[in-house]
Amino acid sequence: MIDFQALAKSFDTPLYVYDFDHIASRYDELKKAFSGRKSLISYAVKANSNLAVIGHLAALGAGADCVSIGEVRRALMAGVPKYKIIFSGVGKRDDEIREALTSDILLLNLESEAEMGRVEAIAAELGVQARISIRVNPNIDPKTHPYISTGLHENKFGVDIETAKRLYIKAHQSPHLDPVGIHFHIGSQLTELEPIKEAAAIVADLVRSLLAIKIELKFFDVGGGLGIVYDDEETIAPYDYAQAILSTLQGLDVTVVCEPGRYIVGNAGWFLTRVLYEKVNEGKRFVIVDGAMNDLLRPSLYNAYHRVEVVGKSGNESEADIVGPVCESGDFFAKNRPLPPTEPGDLVVVHSAGAYGFVMASNYNTRPRPAEVAVEGGRVRCIRQRETFEDLIRLEKMCL
Amino acid sequence: MIDFQALAKSFDTPLYVYDFDHIASRYDELKKAFSGRKSLISYAVKANSNLAVIGHLAALGAGADCVSIGEVRRALMAGVPKYKIIFSGVGKRDDEIREALTSDILLLNLESEAEMGRVEAIAAELGVQARISIRVNPNIDPKTHPYISTGLHENKFGVDIETAKRLYIKAHQSPHLDPVGIHFHIGSQLTELEPIKEAAAIVADLVRSLLAIKIELKFFDVGGGLGIVYDDEETIAPYDYAQAILSTLQGLDVTVVCEPGRYIVGNAGWFLTRVLYEKVNEGKRFVIVDGAMNDLLRPSLYNAYHRVEVVGKSGNESEADIVGPVCESGDFFAKNRPLPPTEPGDLVVVHSAGAYGFVMASNYNTRPRPAEVAVEGGRVRCIRQRETFEDLIRLEKMCL
Repeated sequence: MIDFQALAKSFDTPLYVYDFDHIASRYDELKKAFSGRKSLISYAVKANSNLAVIGHLAALGAGADCVSIGEVRRALMAGVPKYKIIFSGVGKRDDEIREALTSDILLLNLESEAEMGRVEAIAAELGVQARISIRVNPNIDPKTHPYISTGLHENKFGVDIETAKRLYIKAHQSPHLDPVGIHFHIGSQLTELEPIKEAAAIVADLVRSLLAIKIELKFFDVGGGLGIVYDDEETIAPYDYAQAILSTLQGLDVTVVCEPGRYIVGNAGWFLTRVLYEKVNEGKRFVIVDGAMNDLLRPSLYNAYHRVEVVGKSGNESEADIVGPVCESGDFFAKNRPLPPTEPGDLVVVHSAGAYGFVMASNYNTRPRPAEVAVEGGRVRCIRQRETFEDLIRLEKMCL
Repeated sequence: MIDFQALAKSFDTPLYVYDFDHIASRYDELKKAFSGRKSLISYAVKANSNLAVIGHLAALGAGADCVSIGEVRRALMAGVPKYKIIFSGVGKRDDEIREALTSDILLLNLESEAEMGRVEAIAAELGVQARISIRVNPNIDPKTHPYISTGLHENKFGVDIETAKRLYIKAHQSPHLDPVGIHFHIGSQLTELEPIKEAAAIVADLVRSLLAIKIELKFFDVGGGLGIVYDDEETIAPYDYAQAILSTLQGLDVTVVCEPGRYIVGNAGWFLTRVLYEKVNEGKRFVIVDGAMNDLLRPSLYNAYHRVEVVGKSGNESEADIVGPVCESGDFFAKNRPLPPTEPGDLVVVHSAGAYGFVMASNYNTRPRPAEVAVEGGRVRCIRQRETFEDLIRLEKMCL
């Protein structure tokens, strides 16, 4: 049990807290699920890119799935071996492609023909052969929030199966491209198995048809997207997930790459915030806290549900909204939740805040971003200092 | 005419550009509209809090409406006189209240009875009398986006008329509180005059009834919220706006305070981003650019419309989405817009990005935030340096 009161007292609020033991157990569970096969669990850095989080996973053997050269640098700095780093994303700048090739990471995952052209040209310029995979868009509805659904044709991601095949042939013929993998990712926070299995089967068929023309792919990257419990969602067991995927790979000698982000860190994180005051407007009750949408954007942006709890308080519950100090009605953490009466200083814990929490934080309303703290084997350490006002204006003062 | 190509070449992309002459003309226009009265145009710092922007407005005579102690510090640092600074917001921490009182700013705008209690206690502790206003929630539907609509009772903002009256009497009797103003703000991006006038009339009536019991308020703060043109909205002329408000103030000797943010800076800013590549997925066309939702969140968060233009290109238009490199389908700037064919390196200008643009930017996907540039009288200067990767990890490296 993590002593949230003690952490809030030591590090002040608002604060992010991560349970590194929980992270390790989630990683192990997934790794074990794929144990019948060569596999690489490539952590999706975008979910929580703190150097200590990446470093913790690197020490466990994880690779890194990165979506910007900044994330690639974070992964390298945190100790992820270069041969376990993948650079994905729909829009890579030339300087990012150049640095990725120079860093000799495992592969670049490509999302369009135009991008492949740039990678080929830059590889030629550098005199190297670029290891690539292609993201295939299998046109499967993942049944999740439209903003994080990525496997339909109307989305910007990947290329369709026919285009992929043509690109693999083109890449195979190029002296500067080495097609080593294939990738798909149909969405985030997936809670149904069938769409994943369907997508894997479509992509595995493509791998077989490429094999038939002597294009032998080594990495079968199934993306991420495993859902977690925010409220009372049914989720997919790692074992069932692995079995569903492996069942589509008969006759293929590939390393399965899996890119979990939220699954690894989502439930391992909490956002702590203190009550400032309560107010009632015409019967509507508000609990105003010192955290805000700039600290944790998911409720505003996705209308996401997070479980909330007032530490040490219970009983006499009545419906309330938990809202922050930012001057927008969209600044809320929870709406219409049964909550006990609160007093100034009471600690509110927002659950499942380990993924897409701090990484989406901003300085909106000139609010410094929270500190981040890790708990591991009962020991606590700060893994990111709280921002100060001086941090916020540094790059402006340089211009004055 | 601003030479966007030259700016993109000098400062790279993504980039924010502000026209300081346009800002000055908007300020002047509003100031002039209220010229028949004592007035204070108190710039809403949250819209664009760059020190140079605030300083520019301070030099023109503007005050500052702040919603955090960080914004108060920015205003003071940028040269706004303390007697023109207002500290608003639904949730002020004790340390913020203390610093605001010590800084001797014009007034603290209060939003709840509980907050008034804290301000009174801290003023007593400091041995000062706190100048305050109270935000009244007149229960008027402003007819704008629900997230930026703030004048209905179901919102967290302000107190209702009856509560306000009671609080004014209480404050008047306290040796540590000096009720000097009244405030309302019914929402943002308002394009209809009637709700504003209706709200002003309700609040003016309250001021009169307070006067009758010898509570004499000096500042009548009408908030902000004047809409601007993003697409083809009808907007309110400053003169009509001022007349509507002034018409409700017969018999009252008050200084009108107005808190424009978007109105002053919204159309004075542009977001510049370059095309990386185009791609077509099953007939759906995407223009992928180097800017993303982390740089400009409004399209994702509010589904906001921004006019876009490809510099120097026209003709042969077909529908396309302009999207960024972030791995979310919510990462877009424009959807289904007629656009000419583009090539890598083409410059895309996103209009009306001066308000709620940079201030909401984050480092999502480990993307450094853009630089900000000001153009004034044909002269160009950087007002915020582009972030570097080192800036992003500084507070984490300190913990390693």
